[in-house]
Amino acid sequence: MPDPSDATREMQRLLRRAQSTPDAADASDLPAADIVRHLQPFLTERRQARIEAVLEERTTTVVPVVEGIVNTGNVSAVMRSAEALGFHQFHVIMNAAAEDTQFKTSRRTSQGAEKWLDVQVWETPAACARRLRERGYRVVVTHLDDAAVPLGTLDFTEPTAIVFGNERDGASEALLAEADATCIVPMSGFTQSFNISVAAAVVLYHAREDRLRRQGHHGDLPADAKEALRAHYFLQSVNRAADILARAQEEV
Amino acid sequence: MPDPSDATREMQRLLRRAQSTPDAADASDLPAADIVRHLQPFLTERRQARIEAVLEERTTTVVPVVEGIVNTGNVSAVMRSAEALGFHQFHVIMNAAAEDTQFKTSRRTSQGAEKWLDVQVWETPAACARRLRERGYRVVVTHLDDAAVPLGTLDFTEPTAIVFGNERDGASEALLAEADATCIVPMSGFTQSFNISVAAAVVLYHAREDRLRRQGHHGDLPADAKEALRAHYFLQSVNRAADILARAQEEV
Repeated sequence: MPDPSDATREMQRLLRRAQSTPDAADASDLPAADIVRHLQPFLTERRQARIEAVLEERTTTVVPVVEGIVNTGNVSAVMRSAEALGFHQFHVIMNAAAEDTQFKTSRRTSQGAEKWLDVQVWETPAACARRLRERGYRVVVTHLDDAAVPLGTLDFTEPTAIVFGNERDGASEALLAEADATCIVPMSGFTQSFNISVAAAVVLYHAREDRLRRQGHHGDLPADAKEALRAHYFLQSVNRAADILARAQEEV
Repeated sequence: MPDPSDATREMQRLLRRAQSTPDAADASDLPAADIVRHLQPFLTERRQARIEAVLEERTTTVVPVVEGIVNTGNVSAVMRSAEALGFHQFHVIMNAAAEDTQFKTSRRTSQGAEKWLDVQVWETPAACARRLRERGYRVVVTHLDDAAVPLGTLDFTEPTAIVFGNERDGASEALLAEADATCIVPMSGFTQSFNISVAAAVVLYHAREDRLRRQGHHGDLPADAKEALRAHYFLQSVNRAADILARAQEEV
């Protein structure tokens, strides 16, 4: 078992790596369309096709949120599922007690998924929930209480932040106070819970299927968001992209 | 990292624990109905209601199969998902190279789910597939090849064995030679794979949802199978059940 402070640092490294992915706007003064134009020659057709396929399937209508997860491997695993299933945003609410908690670490679980996500980190559930609500999201927490509805009754074509709590204690009281609804994955065995990475994958898979069934498509980025994200993916995919763009600007 | 031979023993312990769950027929010469009658007074109403709810949702129409998984924790995690989602049978095809492989172990991942499953262990994919086909199952392997169909195109109200391969190398050639079909979980990100416990949970969740949507119910055990399983669950749930049954038989 690694030293807790090592593990705290590991979580910080994962989140820093996730947050430091350069946004198209940050990486260059160039408009997204210019970034795309300058970097396109450096991408194979196969890579470009892959990027277009991902863009077509991306959504910000459903936003995964994890709260107070102490195991970096678990956060990475949820990121990996979220990215694989076409979700673009990813919120992390830090665990107030993190410094006191024994961490377990994992470096490879995410397979670099954090590189492709828009990860935002919050100190408190209230701050995260307030921002999400300002942006028009309802906050749904996966949590068993008397008011909890089965996952299948939710309409995931509506803007929804879906929150997964701590692996041992579930969602915090502070988070539940912010919830517009609670929901559960229906289960029918003696086993009454899933581990966090399994629960999150099932819920996100369900949300994607629900969207496909209701409206025929999962991805729904508007053209300008798609163009900005295309520039971002190009920046992530080309070696020394910053140098190439600097040279292109000098040549103007 | 534990010693590989320790880990091999750990996998053997898990499977032995799973297989040693006493069948109603083995545990006593009594018919299932008598076992149920004698043990019922020793169960709370709450426990009995839980057992009835589980029985009502149990199915053997879809059978999860894992092949060559080297990490005991992964087998346990898939068992836990299978049990939680109402699947009764569970097949394990051993990894021929197991003795040469570095294992990682886990004791708590299954939460004892193996206790409630009918676990069968096979030495080879061919032996397992032959038996399954004799019983009327088609063998579907989760594996990406040219013939692979999206998960959503399968009808899980048809008897289906759904196979998950080794965590690193996927399904073996010997297994693929036995497959009636291959299928994939559709994904739309840069991340192109799930880990085994996530993949299995998503597929089994999907299978359950598919069955509910097509026929309105997941569980489908006939009355006699349900009665035998009720006796099995009662035996698993009552302390010193064998003593109680022996006493009851003496009193006849």
